[in-house]
Amino acid sequence: MRHLTPARHAIWAAALLTLAAGSAAKAEEGMWTFDNFPIARANQTLGTSIDQAWLDRVRLSSVKFGGCSAGIVSGEGLVMTNNHCVATCVANISTQAVNYAETGFTPRAREEEVKCPGGTAEVLTDISDVTERMQAAGAGLEGQAFTQARDAEAGRIEQEACGGAADKRCQVVTLYRGGQFKLYTYKKYSDVRLAFAPEDRAATFGGDLDNFSFPRFAIDAAFIRLYENDAPAQTPTHFKWNPAKPVEGTPVFVAGSPGATQRLLTMDQLMTVRDVVLPLDQLIASELRGRLIRYSEEGERQAFEAMDPIVGLENTYKRGLGRMRALTDPQFMDMKAAAEVDFMQRYAAANGDGPDPWGALEAVQPIQRELYPAMALLEGGTGVGTTPVAGGSQLFLWARTLVRGAQEREKASAERLPEYADSRLAGVQSGLFAERPVYPELEQVRLEWWLSKTREWLTVDNPDVRALLGRESPEGLSARLVEGTKLADPAVRRALWEGGLQAVQASDDPLIRYLLSIQEPTRAIRADWESRVQAPTDQASERLAAARFAAYGDSVYPDATGTLRLTYGKIEGSDVPGQRWGPFTTFDGLWDRATGAAPFDVAPKLLAAKDRIPADTVMNMTLSSDTIGGSSGSPVVNAEGEILGANFDSTVLTQRNAYGYDRNVNRSVIVTTGAVTTALRDVYGMERLVAELGGR
Amino acid sequence: MRHLTPARHAIWAAALLTLAAGSAAKAEEGMWTFDNFPIARANQTLGTSIDQAWLDRVRLSSVKFGGCSAGIVSGEGLVMTNNHCVATCVANISTQAVNYAETGFTPRAREEEVKCPGGTAEVLTDISDVTERMQAAGAGLEGQAFTQARDAEAGRIEQEACGGAADKRCQVVTLYRGGQFKLYTYKKYSDVRLAFAPEDRAATFGGDLDNFSFPRFAIDAAFIRLYENDAPAQTPTHFKWNPAKPVEGTPVFVAGSPGATQRLLTMDQLMTVRDVVLPLDQLIASELRGRLIRYSEEGERQAFEAMDPIVGLENTYKRGLGRMRALTDPQFMDMKAAAEVDFMQRYAAANGDGPDPWGALEAVQPIQRELYPAMALLEGGTGVGTTPVAGGSQLFLWARTLVRGAQEREKASAERLPEYADSRLAGVQSGLFAERPVYPELEQVRLEWWLSKTREWLTVDNPDVRALLGRESPEGLSARLVEGTKLADPAVRRALWEGGLQAVQASDDPLIRYLLSIQEPTRAIRADWESRVQAPTDQASERLAAARFAAYGDSVYPDATGTLRLTYGKIEGSDVPGQRWGPFTTFDGLWDRATGAAPFDVAPKLLAAKDRIPADTVMNMTLSSDTIGGSSGSPVVNAEGEILGANFDSTVLTQRNAYGYDRNVNRSVIVTTGAVTTALRDVYGMERLVAELGGR
Repeated sequence: MRHLTPARHAIWAAALLTLAAGSAAKAEEGMWTFDNFPIARANQTLGTSIDQAWLDRVRLSSVKFGGCSAGIVSGEGLVMTNNHCVATCVANISTQAVNYAETGFTPRAREEEVKCPGGTAEVLTDISDVTERMQAAGAGLEGQAFTQARDAEAGRIEQEACGGAADKRCQVVTLYRGGQFKLYTYKKYSDVRLAFAPEDRAATFGGDLDNFSFPRFAIDAAFIRLYENDAPAQTPTHFKWNPAKPVEGTPVFVAGSPGATQRLLTMDQLMTVRDVVLPLDQLIASELRGRLIRYSEEGERQAFEAMDPIVGLENTYKRGLGRMRALTDPQFMDMKAAAEVDFMQRYAAANGDGPDPWGALEAVQPIQRELYPAMALLEGGTGVGTTPVAGGSQLFLWARTLVRGAQEREKASAERLPEYADSRLAGVQSGLFAERPVYPELEQVRLEWWLSKTREWLTVDNPDVRALLGRESPEGLSARLVEGTKLADPAVRRALWEGGLQAVQASDDPLIRYLLSIQEPTRAIRADWESRVQAPTDQASERLAAARFAAYGDSVYPDATGTLRLTYGKIEGSDVPGQRWGPFTTFDGLWDRATGAAPFDVAPKLLAAKDRIPADTVMNMTLSSDTIGGSSGSPVVNAEGEILGANFDSTVLTQRNAYGYDRNVNRSVIVTTGAVTTALRDVYGMERLVAELGGR
Repeated sequence: MRHLTPARHAIWAAALLTLAAGSAAKAEEGMWTFDNFPIARANQTLGTSIDQAWLDRVRLSSVKFGGCSAGIVSGEGLVMTNNHCVATCVANISTQAVNYAETGFTPRAREEEVKCPGGTAEVLTDISDVTERMQAAGAGLEGQAFTQARDAEAGRIEQEACGGAADKRCQVVTLYRGGQFKLYTYKKYSDVRLAFAPEDRAATFGGDLDNFSFPRFAIDAAFIRLYENDAPAQTPTHFKWNPAKPVEGTPVFVAGSPGATQRLLTMDQLMTVRDVVLPLDQLIASELRGRLIRYSEEGERQAFEAMDPIVGLENTYKRGLGRMRALTDPQFMDMKAAAEVDFMQRYAAANGDGPDPWGALEAVQPIQRELYPAMALLEGGTGVGTTPVAGGSQLFLWARTLVRGAQEREKASAERLPEYADSRLAGVQSGLFAERPVYPELEQVRLEWWLSKTREWLTVDNPDVRALLGRESPEGLSARLVEGTKLADPAVRRALWEGGLQAVQASDDPLIRYLLSIQEPTRAIRADWESRVQAPTDQASERLAAARFAAYGDSVYPDATGTLRLTYGKIEGSDVPGQRWGPFTTFDGLWDRATGAAPFDVAPKLLAAKDRIPADTVMNMTLSSDTIGGSSGSPVVNAEGEILGANFDSTVLTQRNAYGYDRNVNRSVIVTTGAVTTALRDVYGMERLVAELGGR
């Protein structure tokens, strides 16, 4: 530790004065991979007796559905997830006139189930270790050569394992920030149909205000169905539906694909997130929110168009608020510092004057602080932020895929940007060809916001900004691009994709021409980021990972990376300041909380069914299992492998889980199978699904 | 220093490892009061020979105009300030059809000069010390009793000194955060007329993007005229107009009323600003900005209505960004910590085991962090933040003044909320009775945003939020209040004010009724804040101020408080990363920078005069004088007492000046008298003003 700076010294000094805490996982902590789940510890903590066969069944019953999780609940491909996980699907199959978000989607027969545009679902069938190949690929390299060699090797591994199989997907997963690499093989379903969604308000009662909070009264559940060869998939391995009233203290397991945690970051890295990443992301998201809210108030059409985008944006934004709160909480940061000091001390004892990975990461921070705005705004893919490139404009993203896809496919797979490697083209095409509605005025709002914020944050005289805008204004350029483009038509997109670089270069579509014109600056910022931020970060993180294994053995788990994990805990309420409640809410509570004014208005069909719903039916409950965003829809399973509900949320306080586990405040919020059963049977006339679930 | 916590220790440890820097003012540092200006040091630093008579003349030629500064430039009451300081006046006297922001306001004869609604201007005529009286008033008291006793004493002092004189204002000014109290007596002008404003775009070329930056090309200047008895005021003491080309290195002085600095805050207090105050203020301001931008795009009427509010909001927001950047800059914070350690060491050497004012302030921080959102959103007046109560809704603020004014005037002056003490009622009435246009739809946008953000930040189940909204939604309540109220009519406001509590209580105006209904919670949060945050902060700050005098003598200056100060420096460019330029821009540069697309479109009349304007005329320049927001419009004076320009801005990097002086980055941005002269003569046909200024 020769290289301690004043700032690092300060962290040490602070941490040494508090109770030093180790980095080993505590009981109920951890989002564990299925090939390293602490079976014995979990059984000991919970008093259960699960085994490897149990783990295998749970894994094969668990589904990754876009950015969400889900669980198979019948032998005929029926899958439960959250309503908010199908909200975009519902929006895509709705029109202003026939709006399933308002009415619910309740097909009376299986044949009326409707395909979700671009929807895919995956079941994790195999895990194998590819650490040696991946580490060898980058050995001796620096900068962008290092990241490119790694990316190319991952593409090769994936392609070798999955080839062109349409019903499989292979993914090299980076664990422990480079400490391990695993090849995950999925059974892939490209035909996913919506089988049931409640009225949106039944799932979002309380709206953004009740989001990330408890007590909660939301039937945030929906069903999709997996199809193969135009028929329901056969899924003999699935969770048994258990709609019985839940019992406080019951041991539970949650299987899902939590999105991303940053628990293994050093204090220096966390301070970059606190000082640069979150402020940029949150501040500009807040302005977009304001623009969209006002847009949605301009008329019924605008309200319809903006509903799903606003909900998604508000969810990300509120999660960010919870994260800001964590990183500005002196006690939480002291806890993180204490854990880092414990690790540093163990490392120093074992390595003496060896290389200093903390110092290497500290040296990256000024560069990351400098480059983050340009990378986040112009390119995306920073791995730490949430700012959507082009404001999430669908047209822009399609155009980028077309232009880059054409340019990259001219090269050998290993030479391409990794997202266009052969092993990933199927996924790219599936997104590109999906038949999704496009709302031009909304697209223009997004693009205008993005151009305006990029100009503001990078400053008007920045050469990249000049390349982006030329002599046009954000208002004028965004209007010109959206008015002129034909990319809303899937046939046009397909023709350009299939026509390759020649077709793209010959296109006079203004959005294609625009994307062609900005490739140089956007690719340059990405190269800069990869070489000066990503590569040195990856290399130092890999050394830290090895050191962590040496210090703590396999009692550590990897950061979440959007891949399947298993967590465990109990059905339990909460008793900390700002978060005091028992574990259950009932329909009684819903009727009490309703004011009639949005978002506290009960959905009409739900309200109409009030007399048929047993008032003491548990709607939502909380668990102590370790959770983070992306776990949405995760099946909650008891020790017998029965499904008790679907994870749909956590609390604002729980957002600190992104950076460090705190059992006191960590709570998942679950919609129960009991509430879903009564909704299907007593509200929405979906007895056919109740029967399929086992009829109880 | 027995009470050092881990966090404090960490600051010490960090600071001790850097070069410890003292807290005494460095050359060119300081916003000095006119009764403690370091004449000798300034003369030594600049090579000038100013004296007390010079100071007196400058003080009597300097004007406070609302939240801005200004300088008298003729014997007949002509005053130069910034165009952005008269922007609200211009908006108030404009209509969509006759919009002076578009055309400029160029009265051909003095009789056509138009009164600014509610505009007042003040000249500081006398300063006397009232420290003993003020400190005695609070002696032995704690909590709200302490703040109330102080407030009451200030009101008594002001009333005794100014009585009911209509042309005077008396103000007890708190300096050094309670180390000194001074009575400032002003000559007050209640009839202020607009004498000239350029086209808005001439003053705001580059808009928000070029705001807080340099090189700059903005004729951000305007003229008002002081009137007495319906005739131009006689002002024999005034600055001599000097439109000569400015020379790099010239010593200059800037006299103005900088708004507020927080340089004397402890590190613990600064971290509260960083972690709680700035994030709340900035995040919600960003959403309001988004709502207003979209609103302004809905039509020409909306664009007209929202223009002035957006400019003001963006200015505050961008300043906040600069402040966030300062408080998250590790080097800057190390510098602040080093200064604190130096002070602590001196304090410990002198006081041994005496009381620990740092510890007292540290103990306040958790409470301030907890109470800030409620205080900022429900009541305002936190002294640290910028969030406007009720979104700055003019109707709401009038209604609050009417309701509280009526309630408070039932009590003896010393018992009232201090803003309704007898000595302040004249100012209250002048604002209340001003004839200002009201735009109902815009008012509704502001109120809806405010209600919505208050509910979000305080949470929906907070009792205060329930009191604020009842069972209504922000959308519904804001619409109902704005549609129903008659307070846009000045006669209605006057009748209610003059009718007193009886009239207010009998009113069926929905906004009056609403304000009556929320008095209990809003007054309660204010009482809570005063007793648990303000009082202990004031008491500890007073002890720190005494300690600072003991440690550094009179070489320290007080934080800025919106009262008249004098700073000094030189005409100088900048040479630090991100801020490298010479001190001058010319009209040549303007023509070069223009793209034709807003906000880089040259104002039409200015463009039409291109051939008449000498291209090498200096438009803007930068100074090294110590600056902060509120200095806008400050006269820039040379050692001969001639005016060379008006301060109108600084840079984003300079915003750290709020918390600590850094000569390297500190730069004021000035519009020159030369540019103003050519604009008056060559663009706007205002030869009569050029003649009045001396005819050069």
